[in-house]
Amino acid sequence: MKVNGTHYRSLWWDDDRQALQIIDQRWLPHDFRVQQVDTMQDFADAIVEMRVRGAPLIGATAAYGMALAARLDPSDAHLDESFAFLDKTRPTAINLRWALTRCRAHLKALPVDERAAAALKLAHEISDEDVEINRNIGRNGLEIIRGIAAGKKDGEPVRILTHCNAGWIATVDWGTATSPMYQAHDAGIPIHVWVDETRPRNQGALTSWELGSHGIPHTYITDNAGGHLMQHGQVDLVIVGTDRTTRRGDVCNKIGTYLKALAAKANNVPFYVALPSPTIDWAVDNGVAEIPIEERLEREVTHIQGLKEDGTIGQVQVTPVGTPGGNPAFDVTPNHLVTGLITERGVCAASAEGLAGLFPDLSKLAESA
Amino acid sequence: MKVNGTHYRSLWWDDDRQALQIIDQRWLPHDFRVQQVDTMQDFADAIVEMRVRGAPLIGATAAYGMALAARLDPSDAHLDESFAFLDKTRPTAINLRWALTRCRAHLKALPVDERAAAALKLAHEISDEDVEINRNIGRNGLEIIRGIAAGKKDGEPVRILTHCNAGWIATVDWGTATSPMYQAHDAGIPIHVWVDETRPRNQGALTSWELGSHGIPHTYITDNAGGHLMQHGQVDLVIVGTDRTTRRGDVCNKIGTYLKALAAKANNVPFYVALPSPTIDWAVDNGVAEIPIEERLEREVTHIQGLKEDGTIGQVQVTPVGTPGGNPAFDVTPNHLVTGLITERGVCAASAEGLAGLFPDLSKLAESA
Repeated sequence: MKVNGTHYRSLWWDDDRQALQIIDQRWLPHDFRVQQVDTMQDFADAIVEMRVRGAPLIGATAAYGMALAARLDPSDAHLDESFAFLDKTRPTAINLRWALTRCRAHLKALPVDERAAAALKLAHEISDEDVEINRNIGRNGLEIIRGIAAGKKDGEPVRILTHCNAGWIATVDWGTATSPMYQAHDAGIPIHVWVDETRPRNQGALTSWELGSHGIPHTYITDNAGGHLMQHGQVDLVIVGTDRTTRRGDVCNKIGTYLKALAAKANNVPFYVALPSPTIDWAVDNGVAEIPIEERLEREVTHIQGLKEDGTIGQVQVTPVGTPGGNPAFDVTPNHLVTGLITERGVCAASAEGLAGLFPDLSKLAESA
Repeated sequence: MKVNGTHYRSLWWDDDRQALQIIDQRWLPHDFRVQQVDTMQDFADAIVEMRVRGAPLIGATAAYGMALAARLDPSDAHLDESFAFLDKTRPTAINLRWALTRCRAHLKALPVDERAAAALKLAHEISDEDVEINRNIGRNGLEIIRGIAAGKKDGEPVRILTHCNAGWIATVDWGTATSPMYQAHDAGIPIHVWVDETRPRNQGALTSWELGSHGIPHTYITDNAGGHLMQHGQVDLVIVGTDRTTRRGDVCNKIGTYLKALAAKANNVPFYVALPSPTIDWAVDNGVAEIPIEERLEREVTHIQGLKEDGTIGQVQVTPVGTPGGNPAFDVTPNHLVTGLITERGVCAASAEGLAGLFPDLSKLAESA
């Protein structure tokens, strides 16, 4: 999407420098910084420190990490070592494992001297696929928004609530949850987005930055506000992304998503999850019982980053010095709270039947694995 | 309760200066500043700017405001004018209206020349009553905690989640939701408190400061985390306060309370609300439909205050410059999500029958009004 009128992807390959370029998202929305990723440690840092974030973008970044690994040393042993090194950077987003597995399997099947070039080509393909997937998620989600808009008076916006940033900067382009919003807006359907702040890392500020850049009306709210808004008929639908979706449609997403799903259910607000198929973990059934939840640093909770009065970026500590902070980074929304899953192949029920119906190929592949 | 070993109330009368002293809570937990309240405008500012906050403390402050009004000019006209002036400072906490109504009625029944002294005496009484009420809320809530502790293995803490600050600094002393916690801790029952951050004003930092000062183990968490913790059996009960409770037991409290109540219901976690009887609005039945919700400044959402790296207190802006912020300050939890109401007279069901059973006197008084 566009930043100050220029089209960007969230990462891109610089042919002259033969290196990956990323947007260092830790400084957004206040500062737009591009960083070159040169070493395996750079790749790990970029993912761990959330310079890149969002399940699809983490997957694409990891693919470029494997491309660097293959260039440095294309042996099986080094590919295995690099796989393990990158795999441990974040525990939740299944796309990370998916991309690493795909790259390693592809490369190991090739002669060693062809691997470096093939790895880079595959990373490009994975990035391009992500863009195409998200474009299709948007096309499918657009129809849901169009259906709600049809019941509105002329000019009344469809009011969409979203949590975290499942936007274009969480993917290579378009975003997942935001793709239907961008496409609805571009199709001339008036929408208004309630943007959950999404503590502790305030990814809502990223979503506000994206939506603002694209000219989509929106309001930034605390994570506490959504229940009240739904209770008072101020939300027409919820669309969120996901870091991992189980075979039966349980949704692991940013902490707090589950609370919004409960509120949506209680107030008959449709609750949709937008997801690219690489986010499906066909090996997991019960998300609450089976998905380990990443516990991140307590400093993310006790300190908050923003723009200081002097125009520089800094942090303030909110809690008394020494207060212990708890920081589970994700939660699981059980499938019965999900109205539907918006995928690149269409919209389906959040159930084993729903997902297998849209993805019989992937579902069977997983069964035979 | 104690601050650095010295016992404080949240407000107190200084006889020498003949003036009210408050703790200016805008600087807590980082700085403990005492402020003298001298003029009617000081009183209004103290409430509007949340130097004093919490329904019971707002009520007690307002009583001292009426005492000043009576000293300045004890005429009926001036008492009416002062009532209106203070009444408009905050729209939600019913204790404000309750204290103002009580003071005005009491004073108007007296000869004009007795009013100034009587007004001050009444403000002292309202403050002392609040302390006594909260002590009794704690005694009653303690039994609930004791009951849960009885089912625990030796040394395992009762894990309590709370939202916002319904602590001693939200009252004259003891707090409402925290009073059972202080009394359980003092009775040797091990407890651990999950403290909701409570955006946008992070009153969880105040609760952490209070609990830390009293030596009660606690963990500061984002408002997003509670659903996940309940889903995984990490919360034994929820206790929150309330700014206004309807005749049938709907609970208007800090924004986000409703989301926690939904999560508690979904996960069979007992959800209790601690309330002094002045918080009951006998004139309101359906809280969702009838209680107007205060919309506060958007800057409270887009900017966050804390301790800067240089040790001073300042703000950072989290959102992109110009992002619109929405800031509904309260929400209503319908009575069917509330396990019980902990009052100074005992614990009752969140229903018209439950409240009328404990408070037949107040209930009948309201009916005849």
